[in-house]
Amino acid sequence: MSGARFPLAVSLGDPAGIGPEILCASYGRLKSGAANPHPFFVVGGFEVLRAAAARSGIDCPIIPIAQPDEAPMAFAAGLPVMAGLDTRYAPGAPTTDGAQLAFSSLKWATEFTLRSEAAALVTAPVAKAQLMQVGFDFPGQTEFLASACEMQPRDAVMMLAGPSLRTVPLTVHVALSEVPALLTADLITHKARIVAKGLQRDFGLERPRLAVAGLNPHSGEGGQFGGEEQRVIEPAIAELAAEGFDVIGPIPGDALFTPMMRGSYDAALCMYHDQALIPLKALEFDEGVNVTLGLPIIRTSPDHGTAFDIAGQGKADPSAMCAAIRMAANCAAARAG
Amino acid sequence: MSGARFPLAVSLGDPAGIGPEILCASYGRLKSGAANPHPFFVVGGFEVLRAAAARSGIDCPIIPIAQPDEAPMAFAAGLPVMAGLDTRYAPGAPTTDGAQLAFSSLKWATEFTLRSEAAALVTAPVAKAQLMQVGFDFPGQTEFLASACEMQPRDAVMMLAGPSLRTVPLTVHVALSEVPALLTADLITHKARIVAKGLQRDFGLERPRLAVAGLNPHSGEGGQFGGEEQRVIEPAIAELAAEGFDVIGPIPGDALFTPMMRGSYDAALCMYHDQALIPLKALEFDEGVNVTLGLPIIRTSPDHGTAFDIAGQGKADPSAMCAAIRMAANCAAARAG
Repeated sequence: MSGARFPLAVSLGDPAGIGPEILCASYGRLKSGAANPHPFFVVGGFEVLRAAAARSGIDCPIIPIAQPDEAPMAFAAGLPVMAGLDTRYAPGAPTTDGAQLAFSSLKWATEFTLRSEAAALVTAPVAKAQLMQVGFDFPGQTEFLASACEMQPRDAVMMLAGPSLRTVPLTVHVALSEVPALLTADLITHKARIVAKGLQRDFGLERPRLAVAGLNPHSGEGGQFGGEEQRVIEPAIAELAAEGFDVIGPIPGDALFTPMMRGSYDAALCMYHDQALIPLKALEFDEGVNVTLGLPIIRTSPDHGTAFDIAGQGKADPSAMCAAIRMAANCAAARAG
Repeated sequence: MSGARFPLAVSLGDPAGIGPEILCASYGRLKSGAANPHPFFVVGGFEVLRAAAARSGIDCPIIPIAQPDEAPMAFAAGLPVMAGLDTRYAPGAPTTDGAQLAFSSLKWATEFTLRSEAAALVTAPVAKAQLMQVGFDFPGQTEFLASACEMQPRDAVMMLAGPSLRTVPLTVHVALSEVPALLTADLITHKARIVAKGLQRDFGLERPRLAVAGLNPHSGEGGQFGGEEQRVIEPAIAELAAEGFDVIGPIPGDALFTPMMRGSYDAALCMYHDQALIPLKALEFDEGVNVTLGLPIIRTSPDHGTAFDIAGQGKADPSAMCAAIRMAANCAAARAG
């Protein structure tokens, strides 16, 4: 078995959210889709997954396994689940027990991937408010993963990827009023280097083309409305170009995502959350994948939340989870060469 | 002739830009498209338009007229142009003479519309830097029009409209760092009322559905990253709802433009330029129309610039100009009832 065919480790997410049902649905869809799909296994939640499949009317046998290397074999018969961690399935009603299970599942799925028993990590959605009640002390799963990989949070870079667009928010969960002060040439060059390296290693792009957005309308129109382009963004781009990166910008935000421009780069580096997320969700809503670049492990995640309000009602769309699993498999294949 | 069939007045735009060639191309496309297209005429630039048509190989007879009421008849034979203002055609090389022609064309086209000799005004793109050299003392054409209509600039509201999306930037050409301080409940309610009234009067929507964006990521997530939603946006929405408007929000920027959400409102009120322009240009690039609401006259414009770099090379796409002319005609018909 080549390195790329180690199974993917998938965390369960909050068992009261849509995670369990979309994992069952993804198994069915991926199994019937490609000729030889990359096998994956879920870490914990055997009873949760069985109940979720039954409740949603998904024909998905749940197969208990005792260790990751059983997953490829078990995958032929059903969705393999590492036994041992579980709770009662109560969709839409998050509990402390459920949050504990989500946290443990994430920890162990990360651990298997770090130990190279899994080729990549895929994380299902969690609820931060719930997790904080059981000792999870991170702004999100990405920061937890940076810590688990013994890296600084700034070295783990979130990229949103769909079939036709990849965007990177350089600042994320901060008030818009704080964004201008947070932008530094160092932030831009540091993250750009991680993105370029990640696109090379995990996406098979030999010479990734980066496009950098402006912050202000029309990129400030020569300093008329805002000087961040001239003070911060242009020097950062010049530095990256001098290092040999293929990089253009600053491109005004509204010009960067036109159909014509989108073909000219492999990833758009955006100055703030909505600048990256608006075009991604407008254009690729059903298939948006959150990829963490810069970690020693491959990690993807569907770009949506737990959706407690529709959990267990058979309404959840597994497309983004399927896309996250497929992308993790492709990245593992690219990294294995 | 019903009021709706007064011709549309179209300004020439900067004669060194793509205006002349897209006006000739639009005539041909609109003439061959609909059964009975709404007639329009260009204000000035007879020689410019003749030269532009010849250079671009567009078969578009240019017909001189002496007053607007000749336009409907002349339209059958070619593109009617009000004679009297002209310059030499030199695409890609803007001049002071050209800027003077653009300014005069805009003034007279506005004047004909204000006098109700034209049913609506369509403006071709101008270059602000050029116009400022000939005494144009406004941030843009919209502010000029507010002044010509003897209104305050804040009463003229820019809406971007495509076939499937309409967005309104509540702040426009200001640095992003200045946006949070500019947002007030009064700004939001004032512009929302103008938008709702404009959609009723000129778009035939009896009870327009407005959606208001948040400013911060996830609309601030309950005040965790930014408090503008709670302090400013929510009170404004509550005030509008109390007045009987159909209004929802604040909706996080990245959720507002997903395919599912887009069907739930007639216009999205956005907090800053790129929040409105990114989704519009990503989704409707070729057909984005800039509509000015709140004026006594109807005014539309293609949502692109002079494009001096490609002028006269046969590369310019007339789609947005066609869309602007069609939308002006539709608004005139709606207003005429």
